[in-house]
Amino acid sequence: MSKPKGFEKPAGVRDYLPHAVARLRQIETQVLQCMERWGYRQIMTPTIEFYDTVGVASSTSDQKLFKLLNNRGTTMVLRSDMTAPIARVVSSLLKEEALPIRLSYHANVFRAIEEEAGREAEFYQTGVELVGDDSPEADAEVVALAIESLRAAGVHTFKMAMGHMGFLNGLLQEILPDRPADQESLKRDLLSRDYVGYRNTIEALNLPEQEAARLEGILRLRGGREVGDAAMELSTNPLARASIEHLCKVWDVLEAYEASEHVLIDLTMIGDFSYYTGMTFEGYAAEIGSPVASGGRYDKLLQQFGRSVPATGFALKTNRILDGVSAQEEGRQKPVLIQYTLEHRKEGLARAASMRKEGRIVVTSLMGDPDHGISRDARDQKSGTSLLHQGYEEIVTLQ
Amino acid sequence: MSKPKGFEKPAGVRDYLPHAVARLRQIETQVLQCMERWGYRQIMTPTIEFYDTVGVASSTSDQKLFKLLNNRGTTMVLRSDMTAPIARVVSSLLKEEALPIRLSYHANVFRAIEEEAGREAEFYQTGVELVGDDSPEADAEVVALAIESLRAAGVHTFKMAMGHMGFLNGLLQEILPDRPADQESLKRDLLSRDYVGYRNTIEALNLPEQEAARLEGILRLRGGREVGDAAMELSTNPLARASIEHLCKVWDVLEAYEASEHVLIDLTMIGDFSYYTGMTFEGYAAEIGSPVASGGRYDKLLQQFGRSVPATGFALKTNRILDGVSAQEEGRQKPVLIQYTLEHRKEGLARAASMRKEGRIVVTSLMGDPDHGISRDARDQKSGTSLLHQGYEEIVTLQ
Repeated sequence: MSKPKGFEKPAGVRDYLPHAVARLRQIETQVLQCMERWGYRQIMTPTIEFYDTVGVASSTSDQKLFKLLNNRGTTMVLRSDMTAPIARVVSSLLKEEALPIRLSYHANVFRAIEEEAGREAEFYQTGVELVGDDSPEADAEVVALAIESLRAAGVHTFKMAMGHMGFLNGLLQEILPDRPADQESLKRDLLSRDYVGYRNTIEALNLPEQEAARLEGILRLRGGREVGDAAMELSTNPLARASIEHLCKVWDVLEAYEASEHVLIDLTMIGDFSYYTGMTFEGYAAEIGSPVASGGRYDKLLQQFGRSVPATGFALKTNRILDGVSAQEEGRQKPVLIQYTLEHRKEGLARAASMRKEGRIVVTSLMGDPDHGISRDARDQKSGTSLLHQGYEEIVTLQ
Repeated sequence: MSKPKGFEKPAGVRDYLPHAVARLRQIETQVLQCMERWGYRQIMTPTIEFYDTVGVASSTSDQKLFKLLNNRGTTMVLRSDMTAPIARVVSSLLKEEALPIRLSYHANVFRAIEEEAGREAEFYQTGVELVGDDSPEADAEVVALAIESLRAAGVHTFKMAMGHMGFLNGLLQEILPDRPADQESLKRDLLSRDYVGYRNTIEALNLPEQEAARLEGILRLRGGREVGDAAMELSTNPLARASIEHLCKVWDVLEAYEASEHVLIDLTMIGDFSYYTGMTFEGYAAEIGSPVASGGRYDKLLQQFGRSVPATGFALKTNRILDGVSAQEEGRQKPVLIQYTLEHRKEGLARAASMRKEGRIVVTSLMGDPDHGISRDARDQKSGTSLLHQGYEEIVTLQ
């Protein structure tokens, strides 16, 4: 174990220099404003939570949780998402609030990572939770808002892939009753989008040809609303059929939003299946390899905090958007430099104050004070160095 | 050790409900905008840093650092301030950048606390660092900006108490040469503002009467620029005298800023003396018991990261301002409720979209769908419940 030295920092975390901060702040502001206009009110929760409450309720696998001990020996975690903390708040501070409750957030979350993997240990999510409404209207609202939020973030070419946990669960229950381990294998293949593996797993199950064909049939269930009809032919299981019916209703609401052109039904797409209970969705942007948004319905989470109400929501993967979408050149305002001699100090500072009131960016500098660093700007000018490349909009010299 | 249950959260951390978030965000935005206009560019750094780099460089005492281990057994810390991380960045990513460098931040920081003490383990700071300039002009700039920042945060009645580490160090060196433990005792008394303790410590030192009187004399060194002259009479030590001279020059610049009316020279006020090397200051607001801002010069920190340059800065204690200053009633915009029957869904959603484009907050609801929660608003209306107290600005019903 080597001691970190000098200016090293831990694996998977990053510094954001001013240019990146400006862009991240722009995404944050635009997306939160969009969510606010849909009636979502912003909430903030602590970075540190108890492992036994929020930690175990989160959808993050145990070995990926960042754990630490408090001085009484109780295990705490750095939050790995905002859904579980918000469920905690809805069940405590907001327990008297009338449903539905609409909440938004922009927050950093943490995942313990393998140092080698090059993944992020701390990153940002911007999202919403809609609590207390289990209708297709609610599911469609969060998908439509995810679409608007991506636009607000500057992502313009994207697709939302929408699935439903219940269809797969119902179909597997029908074809593989009492074989939970096999069901889980198939789900893992789909979750990792390993379709070859999925076919191999089916083959190894030694099912009657027709049933194997039905399981394989899922892989073709991608498209528009017509996928619903095709799915109905694959299963007579009531859960599977009710799920498809719900998904088609969500589609209808999305059509009313004039948003369905961005949506694709994809019944091979499942979210984290220990967590989501209904509709799930992921957003893919043209420029970016991995999902930029993910969400879905989680009707069982809140009961873990003592308030048994349904909920649905999504989060944008804000860092992926920051890194993947080229920033519009915003023409960041350049500062004005006001440099003054001692005799003109009061005048120079007053000029700076009045320009700042007008919204301009102003830095000030005393000239001809060679003992101190602040005279560097002035010296550079005297020695003929171009000040333009130092990025000043204008230089005012009072002498 | 009892297991945390249900919706408990760790000691010293808090949830911010929408009203508090709106206020905190307002402070954050206004203060960062103020700092930007003074030429300070925003930076963000990771929540987690190595103990051996940023941890040991921070001004926070070791037992107050939140420590955790990574999977290689290296000790990490949750950042306890932003000054040490920024020093790391200035010495690495920004090492080619011309001086002076002006950076701002708004960030949560962490302190391990005694559970009983009721103190905050996670809280917000909004501040700046001005790196590469050791002039009185630079010290005055950060004090003047701290004053403007407090105003931007909505704090209007306050005083900045300004001292200098060098005066006390010089005086103590003169009166108590080679007695570092006694020097430290006196500094600790002043740091904790225990003036009775300070007098008792002096008495226990058994000094000649005149020297004891000089040490006690510090307690009267509070006031305007005239305190400088009084201080000069207490010490012939070159460091002490140069410090007072510097402080008087800072005062003169603050006069040019027309800011000196908010400033008080207080030579009993010292900051963390393992950290600050020159001018230090603290801001006190009329409404709030403890300091709302603190800052000063730390010329030795950056050399720990391999870039030996002077620096000065300050941080607002953003949470104290949030909790202590009554919010202006901003008249948060109330949402419009658009409720529609199935037949009017498309029309209702289109109306919502167009009102949101105008900047209004709109929530939508399908009426008459008793299976689902979203119809609650509609049901309440039907049952005669007043919708006004549910906080809608307006209700549009399409049926």
